[in-house]
Amino acid sequence: MFFVALQAHMKLISTDDHVIEHPRVWEDRLPRADLEVGPRIIEMVPAGAPEGSRPGHVWLYEKRQYPQIALNAVAGRKPEEFGLEPNRFDEILPGCYDPKARVDDMDADGVQAQLCFPSFPKFAGTVFLGAEDKQLAGRCVRAYNDFILDEWCAFAPDRLIPLVIVPLWDPHLAAAEIERCAAKGAKAVSFPEATTTLGLPSFHTEHWDPVFAAAEETGLPLCMHFGSSGKPPATAADAPLAVTISLYGCNSMYATADLLFSRVFHKFQRLKVALAEGGIGWVPYMLERIDYTWERHRFYTGVDIDTRPSDLFRRNMWGCFIDDVSGLSQRYTIGVERITWESDYPHSDSNWPNSRKRATEVLADVPDDEVHQIVELNARELLGFTADLDLVSGRG
Amino acid sequence: MFFVALQAHMKLISTDDHVIEHPRVWEDRLPRADLEVGPRIIEMVPAGAPEGSRPGHVWLYEKRQYPQIALNAVAGRKPEEFGLEPNRFDEILPGCYDPKARVDDMDADGVQAQLCFPSFPKFAGTVFLGAEDKQLAGRCVRAYNDFILDEWCAFAPDRLIPLVIVPLWDPHLAAAEIERCAAKGAKAVSFPEATTTLGLPSFHTEHWDPVFAAAEETGLPLCMHFGSSGKPPATAADAPLAVTISLYGCNSMYATADLLFSRVFHKFQRLKVALAEGGIGWVPYMLERIDYTWERHRFYTGVDIDTRPSDLFRRNMWGCFIDDVSGLSQRYTIGVERITWESDYPHSDSNWPNSRKRATEVLADVPDDEVHQIVELNARELLGFTADLDLVSGRG
Repeated sequence: MFFVALQAHMKLISTDDHVIEHPRVWEDRLPRADLEVGPRIIEMVPAGAPEGSRPGHVWLYEKRQYPQIALNAVAGRKPEEFGLEPNRFDEILPGCYDPKARVDDMDADGVQAQLCFPSFPKFAGTVFLGAEDKQLAGRCVRAYNDFILDEWCAFAPDRLIPLVIVPLWDPHLAAAEIERCAAKGAKAVSFPEATTTLGLPSFHTEHWDPVFAAAEETGLPLCMHFGSSGKPPATAADAPLAVTISLYGCNSMYATADLLFSRVFHKFQRLKVALAEGGIGWVPYMLERIDYTWERHRFYTGVDIDTRPSDLFRRNMWGCFIDDVSGLSQRYTIGVERITWESDYPHSDSNWPNSRKRATEVLADVPDDEVHQIVELNARELLGFTADLDLVSGRG
Repeated sequence: MFFVALQAHMKLISTDDHVIEHPRVWEDRLPRADLEVGPRIIEMVPAGAPEGSRPGHVWLYEKRQYPQIALNAVAGRKPEEFGLEPNRFDEILPGCYDPKARVDDMDADGVQAQLCFPSFPKFAGTVFLGAEDKQLAGRCVRAYNDFILDEWCAFAPDRLIPLVIVPLWDPHLAAAEIERCAAKGAKAVSFPEATTTLGLPSFHTEHWDPVFAAAEETGLPLCMHFGSSGKPPATAADAPLAVTISLYGCNSMYATADLLFSRVFHKFQRLKVALAEGGIGWVPYMLERIDYTWERHRFYTGVDIDTRPSDLFRRNMWGCFIDDVSGLSQRYTIGVERITWESDYPHSDSNWPNSRKRATEVLADVPDDEVHQIVELNARELLGFTADLDLVSGRG
């Protein structure tokens, strides 16, 4: 048989998961003078909760309350039990915040390694962008990154891949933080899928050049998670939440068109951008549409007239998927080498503890070598992650 | 040979084209007292134009100026010549505004019939929604519809299919206008892809029930053109226009998710909704994602828990394409019977005068009977359009 799909020696490397920061992440690292205003956990009954409600865990930072410590961290529940978002550490899986439990959960799930996005700081650390005291915020960013590098991933460097955040309010500081973290072993940078929605200059300015240069120079991809723009897709205030959830991928489409028609990949030709949680089934349509637009409108819209945008995508961008039959069936049009796999633990899109089982099903019709690329080798190349690379059976 | 693709007897019926209203559309029909404030054409040098500029044609309505009489009406030019938008009737093809010239241009293009959206009133007539005097605006809506029914399409009822607009500020008046126009032979209604962006209630209210009931009762589809929400996709103020053009389809995706998670198709089970100019290549990905979301989130988000959303799409919705190789390759997943063809004359996406040639190319690998469905028979069924239906060779 040519197809055996997901073989035992192929290691699942996920490019989109989430860590829920434990209560002492910042208290353990910030100077004593910061402890009162830096992020810390308090127990309180959330404002507006019914009388007699159990107190929840709430992040307190600069006197503001952030009540959703574990938004959407419902892995392991049945869909019928989704909806009451957990708001205490004892209501979520210990694997959310404890690296030993995380690795155990990954073992149960058949997953070799994960790239985890932050929770309290938001996917791209934009909570610190919104902070009043930017000096403190800078220390908070570094504390988060040191937590990821020295504690979370250091527990199991062959299983947990370090993704760091940057001080978004200053591209020079951000570049310096990328370099500092890369020297400590970071493998990727979380960066917003759009910056204008955060009140920052667009990808069509030179503002972000120091960040792009540092990412290119260190080889760290910029990982753009759906929603990191702070603007989820929305149709109407009274539309069911399901509408927004189903439209996540549109944010990744916006980011793709925006980047491909910008000067970014012309100026930074080795820059890597990985889209997270946006799916891949839309890529063939969108690249065709982007090229069609480029063919017809490149002469007066101020875009590069020499390079077909889809060629840039196939050089500079990656996508990832959880459960995207439509995307896999179009993998040759997307480019097999553009596709990575994600488990999204502990969020509601995750198939945990059946990720490997589900991956086996969706990859059933894909030839062996392509499966291996998609679940493991592409992510290794994207992230420069070589731990436990099996050079014999992995053909890597 | 099984495949001969687009055969001579197959008639191209386009579900998305545009009429540029000639200067006397409203003057010919409004009562004398309305003539001063109703829409009329004046000649003037647009404000801000360089000194010595040639005067352009501008619509004047309620003392406001609408300078772009023929936005994007560049059919027949080379892409290198796009960009300077025509602003006089003598700068555009006579086929834009003269039905005889239009039919000649359709003959040159190999197109049997077209469904034309308005220009000055905007795709769904929202200029009249924004008018101060709603009594006058109502007369303007009726005048436009009478122009379409009695003049534009009456010139060649077998070639031009009547699409009408409605007074969006009052769903009961809108329903009455649908009934009035259906009785006069209208085949479709232009309706916004989203209403909240226009300051109107959403599809998740009962506000639009009279409109949906009238459309269902008369059998007229609601045609939702990209951009009719008044909110084109945009990433950044300084992004090239190409970004917005390439992302048009996202508006159709928003409309699809919004409708499929609403109560609309549960309450109006025979209602037909046709998306215009949004492409089709995204449909398999988006339906898979919508179903995935429904599987996981239907129990707490207030959506219908019994009917899979993709089943509603395959009963109630249609898409259309100009040049969507990705979509055609996925036609079985979309549903061949969901797909219609469009020429988009006289806009920049159009392949005029090579529409039939280009359709032959993109349909080259599609079996005969499916080509016939896609270019002709689906549109006939959607629109109830039977003129020149060839019962023998058309197998219709």
